[in-house]
Amino acid sequence: MRDPLSKKIVTIEPSGIRKFFDIVSEMKDAISLGVGEPDFDTPWHIREEGIYSLEKGRTFYTSNAGIRELREEIARYLARRYNLLYHFNHEIVVTVGGSEAIDIALRAMLDLQDEVLIPQPCFVSYLPCVMLAGGVPVIIDLKEENQFKLTKEELLEHITEKTKILIMPFPNNPTGAVMTREELEEIAQVVKEKDLFVISDEIYSELTYGTKHVSIAQLPGMKERTIVINGFSKAYAMTGWRLGYAAGPEKILTQMLKIHQFAIMCAPTTSQYAAIEAMRNGDEDVERMRDAYDKRRRFLVHELNEMGLSCFEPFGAFYVFPSIKKTGMTSDEFATRLLQEEKVAVVPGTAFGACGEGFLRISYAYSIENLKVALERIRRFVKKYTK
Amino acid sequence: MRDPLSKKIVTIEPSGIRKFFDIVSEMKDAISLGVGEPDFDTPWHIREEGIYSLEKGRTFYTSNAGIRELREEIARYLARRYNLLYHFNHEIVVTVGGSEAIDIALRAMLDLQDEVLIPQPCFVSYLPCVMLAGGVPVIIDLKEENQFKLTKEELLEHITEKTKILIMPFPNNPTGAVMTREELEEIAQVVKEKDLFVISDEIYSELTYGTKHVSIAQLPGMKERTIVINGFSKAYAMTGWRLGYAAGPEKILTQMLKIHQFAIMCAPTTSQYAAIEAMRNGDEDVERMRDAYDKRRRFLVHELNEMGLSCFEPFGAFYVFPSIKKTGMTSDEFATRLLQEEKVAVVPGTAFGACGEGFLRISYAYSIENLKVALERIRRFVKKYTK
Repeated sequence: MRDPLSKKIVTIEPSGIRKFFDIVSEMKDAISLGVGEPDFDTPWHIREEGIYSLEKGRTFYTSNAGIRELREEIARYLARRYNLLYHFNHEIVVTVGGSEAIDIALRAMLDLQDEVLIPQPCFVSYLPCVMLAGGVPVIIDLKEENQFKLTKEELLEHITEKTKILIMPFPNNPTGAVMTREELEEIAQVVKEKDLFVISDEIYSELTYGTKHVSIAQLPGMKERTIVINGFSKAYAMTGWRLGYAAGPEKILTQMLKIHQFAIMCAPTTSQYAAIEAMRNGDEDVERMRDAYDKRRRFLVHELNEMGLSCFEPFGAFYVFPSIKKTGMTSDEFATRLLQEEKVAVVPGTAFGACGEGFLRISYAYSIENLKVALERIRRFVKKYTK
Repeated sequence: MRDPLSKKIVTIEPSGIRKFFDIVSEMKDAISLGVGEPDFDTPWHIREEGIYSLEKGRTFYTSNAGIRELREEIARYLARRYNLLYHFNHEIVVTVGGSEAIDIALRAMLDLQDEVLIPQPCFVSYLPCVMLAGGVPVIIDLKEENQFKLTKEELLEHITEKTKILIMPFPNNPTGAVMTREELEEIAQVVKEKDLFVISDEIYSELTYGTKHVSIAQLPGMKERTIVINGFSKAYAMTGWRLGYAAGPEKILTQMLKIHQFAIMCAPTTSQYAAIEAMRNGDEDVERMRDAYDKRRRFLVHELNEMGLSCFEPFGAFYVFPSIKKTGMTSDEFATRLLQEEKVAVVPGTAFGACGEGFLRISYAYSIENLKVALERIRRFVKKYTK
């Protein structure tokens, strides 16, 4: 029998995140600070709307782009939060999480050999999705000295004749970096000059601390060349509902909708009804959770720096990204030994790109109690291995 | 600004099904016999499990492949219904409907220019998904004289050096055709001789009338070269839940899981809990709905033949596919005028492939009362246009 597999698919590496969690789930007393999802249940009133829709028998397909009311709410939300005006009917598609939105954006826009700029460290899906869509991922290694933000110079260095898309992953998973309006303006300038398009993954946009998220699409001349990706998973603690969306120029969104229609049909109906409620009455929940994350974030940054794992202050998402270089271990060694010896799971920075070497991703989407125990263990571990 | 779109994406035609339903939804007193989904609400005990999972706060990601219990139930189901033995942990992936499963199967298996055989008339997603995955769709026009089944000769005629995959869309949407074990054996023989793989879309497997569905994967030597696609939408009236699955050889499923993990993450959690209940206690619901479909099916076939729209007996799915050739109209003309003049929406056969010209797809996933009114209108219409 011949090989059933595509030659391309076997060249794509599986995610480096899962490995640790398969171990952790079998290990007694282990604490995981690894998974990238809120520790909160979805707020009750949002779940209640899901329940109500099931009671009412709303178990049918919705329109391909998503329930009209939901798209209207998303349009209102983007207007009131970011001053971004999209038409609910031509410029917004409701997707299966932010992930699907990224995937279909790339599939709608890429031709064979088109280059896509991916600033790393970043979420693990961009690179494989670019490859699957026939594009060529071009990695930009972000630097600790810039607090892992993208600079104009780094961007310019990597642009070629074949560059079509820049992925903007801010607020960033795994570093927690956010970019200010001024910093985004520098990037936007280059994007316009070089006639690029941007896929801006803003799934953590509601989770910023002491600073308000700015979407690159807000900047002059950028809305027409940006696909904004967002969703309900992180802000409203709705990961399992699988609900996200894309907003962007009608020309591109029409093609994304076509792919969505053929490959997915529509996002889950129950989730869509719940999401309407989240948009209408979820602001306080977001604030409550953000405050909790913020407390943990400060605690974590303080403790890690104190034990000698230097850690710049992350202003977004729910991750810190401390350096472990002084221990002399690689990220993978550190994470593996920490799990074996102290039963704490964290993710090696290298899971998010080679330039993550020397760093760890530690999630603070865990209770303070859990974080305290875990930090004690990490402290003991670091002490043991620091000469 | 340069063109943001992929050259490929603009060559893919949008689905021909939706057009009519955008009109119908605005038209008062219109009856639609068009949409491809059950008219039944999801059975209450299944919805109840979804509700229960929300009450319990099960709102988190599941493992990428799906909840273990669900995959175990799917394995048991495939074993008891079709004598197909799959390992829940390496050979089954839970997906966002059957659609996603088809899409990721093609993405995992196709290299550029690989040919995929698509017997038409068929479901509208195969062709665009093949193109999106870089493959070349090769259409096999099925014939009314064969009751729209695929024959060995038709298959052989279309195989080239580049053929890699055969899509088997039975029970068929839109024709309602099913293939018997003997007929499948002829196809399987060719598949093995020519070293092809099969994506067998069995989403309507539970909806067969007077005959039990046979999966081509059951035939000797076929399991190792077949991806079985199935799901909950049609059998359990769960379309809006967006839940399907793929079962097949570990080598292929591992790669499909990788794509699923990056592009989708996991299927919706609430739906997965509900689906466990469907698999465990849903047999009677399936039987009840099947009986209802069967009554409507017989009624419809009888009535259509009586009014002179010749209609072979469909033994699967919930569609009849009558010929309208004697009216002299094209499928599109007939459907358009029927909607304008009699306010009944059906789908032109051409929406499912060029060889559907001269036919209509009429769904009987509607109440007998609705069907009766619609048939009266169709009768009047046919009378008016038959010389």
